[in-house]
Amino acid sequence: MKRSVFFISDRTGITAEMLGHSLMAQFEDDVDFEYHTIPFVDDQEKANNAVTRINQTALRDGTKPIVFETIVRPEIRQIIRNAKAMLLDFFHTYIDPLEEELGVDSSFRVGKSHSTDDLQAYDTRMSAINFALNNDDGMTTQQYDKADIILVGASRCGKTPTSLYMAMQFGIFAANYPFTDEDIPNIKLNQGLAQNKQKIYGLTIDPMRLHEIRNERRPNSKYSSMPQCMLEVREVEALYRRENIPFINTTSRSVEELAVKIMADTEIERRIY
Amino acid sequence: MKRSVFFISDRTGITAEMLGHSLMAQFEDDVDFEYHTIPFVDDQEKANNAVTRINQTALRDGTKPIVFETIVRPEIRQIIRNAKAMLLDFFHTYIDPLEEELGVDSSFRVGKSHSTDDLQAYDTRMSAINFALNNDDGMTTQQYDKADIILVGASRCGKTPTSLYMAMQFGIFAANYPFTDEDIPNIKLNQGLAQNKQKIYGLTIDPMRLHEIRNERRPNSKYSSMPQCMLEVREVEALYRRENIPFINTTSRSVEELAVKIMADTEIERRIY
Repeated sequence: MKRSVFFISDRTGITAEMLGHSLMAQFEDDVDFEYHTIPFVDDQEKANNAVTRINQTALRDGTKPIVFETIVRPEIRQIIRNAKAMLLDFFHTYIDPLEEELGVDSSFRVGKSHSTDDLQAYDTRMSAINFALNNDDGMTTQQYDKADIILVGASRCGKTPTSLYMAMQFGIFAANYPFTDEDIPNIKLNQGLAQNKQKIYGLTIDPMRLHEIRNERRPNSKYSSMPQCMLEVREVEALYRRENIPFINTTSRSVEELAVKIMADTEIERRIY
Repeated sequence: MKRSVFFISDRTGITAEMLGHSLMAQFEDDVDFEYHTIPFVDDQEKANNAVTRINQTALRDGTKPIVFETIVRPEIRQIIRNAKAMLLDFFHTYIDPLEEELGVDSSFRVGKSHSTDDLQAYDTRMSAINFALNNDDGMTTQQYDKADIILVGASRCGKTPTSLYMAMQFGIFAANYPFTDEDIPNIKLNQGLAQNKQKIYGLTIDPMRLHEIRNERRPNSKYSSMPQCMLEVREVEALYRRENIPFINTTSRSVEELAVKIMADTEIERRIY
């Protein structure tokens, strides 16, 4: 069975995509979904064009598309509601009960992208991303006093993506530092790390998975060999235990899961939403 | 007026945060919200602990907290529903009508983090992030044949964060290349860029904002001076017009907005959801 799914928003549509996709994941064993996103539907013409596109898809499929929408402005939303589709509303569904509970009217603003709040969030995020890039891969330990967290681990265990995700999504200042072959055996924390030990969080990984990842990068090298991956993982984990460093296994976890688990564990507060 | 808000999930809670936060933004002029996220509520004990925390907050505030939840498993969700709170459900609200419309039962899986699909998404995202990092700031033009898009512009106009966001959220291979003082006047596309001209997308920025951003980095330098910022922006925009390169102004747009607008404009397909 095939079914078309639309995500429609007057802003980026990313929230509609994320929630809509996690809902559809519950049906993907039985249904083959075709996804379309229509972002920035913020005037009547764009709304009419979206309706035309949905209706043409309905005609082609011979079945109603499913439309997830997060449109704030009522007059735009009204147009979308004319489409020949199953409409699921992620925004207005909740606004009415919230107005009642809070006893105030909602401001029905389309985003808030020019507010001071948003400019501040923008600056925080930029600073955090720059921090992650400037403190990637142990480039320097000079700025560790400004770090919220320092992720450590073997090469290719997930430090860089996790640092960047923390910066991008939460505005957290995350440095990362790799332990390499040269540190083995008996890895020690260098001065920069030792002085900021309370900020260190370890990553580890299944050696087999590490071998696969490294093999993509440098096939048939010592670096990617199974014995080398096993050795590094064993030594790194021994360090974590010896030094009482909290750590997490990245093997079957997404970057989001890693970021959120580490934040929950360390009680680091997000700087932006 | 003050009000506590909880985001509760059996996974990361990021979707609940994003949608919940955009809803609460409609009331932030009138209400002062205090936000809490409780992720990974995936067993009865954690659910009971969450309820305790919500009820204690209700007692402290003298008013019911607002709880946004995306809990998949019904037995966990049932426990959360006992909390003294206004509960808004981002998941089950939609599952029943979807089951009816699709004529199939949902699989009520908690996430899908061990499926092959997810492993593939993981690999795509990692490759895209590594591509963005290896092709940041004009480091090389050798891999432009693999790029989905090449963002160009003056230093500090938003190229790196936009490239990384595209990689992280959508699995897109985005390179970026800076034009510098040395390219002025009469910026030309170098060979690597000229050969991939159809992949180039320009960023520009308000010179005043560029001046502010650069001043944070190198105060009172030629690099950050207002005349230099004006010159660079003028020259870069002249290039875009001369070479028919599509471009976007980053000044008051978030990284999400930039990424999605550029993707919509170029019809680049996202590789992951």
